[in-house]
Amino acid sequence: MNVLIVFCHPEPRSFNGAMKEIAVQSLERLGHRVEVSDLYAERFDPVEGPTHYAERVEPNTFFPLTEQRHAFECTALPADVKREIARLERADLVILQFPLWWHGLPAMLKGWFDRVMVYGGLYSGSMRYDRGHLAGKRAICSVTTGSPATAFTRHGRGGDMATLMWPTHCSLYYLGMEVLAPQVVYGVQGGGLSYQAESEFREHLECAKQAWAERLTRLEDARPIPFSGWRDWDEHGVLQSEHPLAWRV
Amino acid sequence: MNVLIVFCHPEPRSFNGAMKEIAVQSLERLGHRVEVSDLYAERFDPVEGPTHYAERVEPNTFFPLTEQRHAFECTALPADVKREIARLERADLVILQFPLWWHGLPAMLKGWFDRVMVYGGLYSGSMRYDRGHLAGKRAICSVTTGSPATAFTRHGRGGDMATLMWPTHCSLYYLGMEVLAPQVVYGVQGGGLSYQAESEFREHLECAKQAWAERLTRLEDARPIPFSGWRDWDEHGVLQSEHPLAWRV
Repeated sequence: MNVLIVFCHPEPRSFNGAMKEIAVQSLERLGHRVEVSDLYAERFDPVEGPTHYAERVEPNTFFPLTEQRHAFECTALPADVKREIARLERADLVILQFPLWWHGLPAMLKGWFDRVMVYGGLYSGSMRYDRGHLAGKRAICSVTTGSPATAFTRHGRGGDMATLMWPTHCSLYYLGMEVLAPQVVYGVQGGGLSYQAESEFREHLECAKQAWAERLTRLEDARPIPFSGWRDWDEHGVLQSEHPLAWRV
Repeated sequence: MNVLIVFCHPEPRSFNGAMKEIAVQSLERLGHRVEVSDLYAERFDPVEGPTHYAERVEPNTFFPLTEQRHAFECTALPADVKREIARLERADLVILQFPLWWHGLPAMLKGWFDRVMVYGGLYSGSMRYDRGHLAGKRAICSVTTGSPATAFTRHGRGGDMATLMWPTHCSLYYLGMEVLAPQVVYGVQGGGLSYQAESEFREHLECAKQAWAERLTRLEDARPIPFSGWRDWDEHGVLQSEHPLAWRV
């Protein structure tokens, strides 16, 4: 497999950095080719806006999707976006490695979606979900949280993890990818904030690395999260009322 | 009331820009003081990272929360973060005006949370949720979506809107704010992508502006979204099993 790891953390010596490193080592040992998009190290610009489009279709009003489509068609996309698309095209498996910040992706990684997943190139009205451009590829989120696991259970105060992951999982599926259940490490606190002693922190990290390395051996055969698709929907994109899922979702 | 509108769109002449403008006008006409954080116009930097901290507690390893707390305590936070905090402190009502991009906040607005809501200043382990620093203030999201409303119903392919808004609503509540039901305008497409003719687009906009202006007259008495709080949770932050909500959430 070709694997793309999109790594989003400002500190290479972080828990997230260690998770990225063990993934590179483990996957290479298994014979896969690994490429890393290190968004902070590459100073990726997460802000979609007019500055990225020199030749505008609409010089007076900036419509992001219009300019994305036009730039894609003219092969005039910004160099960093082209690079990220090329990496995606090469990948069989995409791993997003990030800390949960404010109940979601860090801005840097959110902007990777905003800018790289260009309209008219990576998706369109007819090219999305199970007819998506990235069909045949798999994706998995590897996430760390500050709060402990209990806070993210069904009745936990942080909201259950499945709900917090839904927007990102939905975006990955929108692009056509199969989404695997996330790898989540809870209760990661560093830099003297922790109630955990340094040795406990190290132990937590070693444990997490081992679990991740072990899981990475099993991703090829893993069953993806089931999503409904075009044949399940009516013309409004709503689950058909007689669909077996409709009574219980 | 003092109202802060956090406006996040790269184009002032956009649907979102018009929604921001009508809010300013309507609120001022009602006698409120309005301040706007125009994130794109002010070139807000949404990327949390070591570049924002000149005097580091930990010069060798960047722990975001550690540096946030330290900078807050030394009043050494970056100028833009200080400005946004001052705006928040002045506000009785906070309006977030943004387009739904990739099932969530645009990176620019996500980074406003990542950078401005500093640990040790705007929240801590004991200062959050209904004991949050911003208690007594109210917040509301005013959102536009590209897809039509049906796609965001309970069985819609985009996922239901309540789920997509949950991470942001949870973040606002985490800070102590009361969260009002969002103002959502569906099916906003511009720049020649639209199946809607220009006149239909204008009509859609006028309709949305009117509804928003009307709703803004009623926000002071509006009932916020109910959340569970400290007295509902056990020591792990989980809804107490005998709590009346536990059986049905």
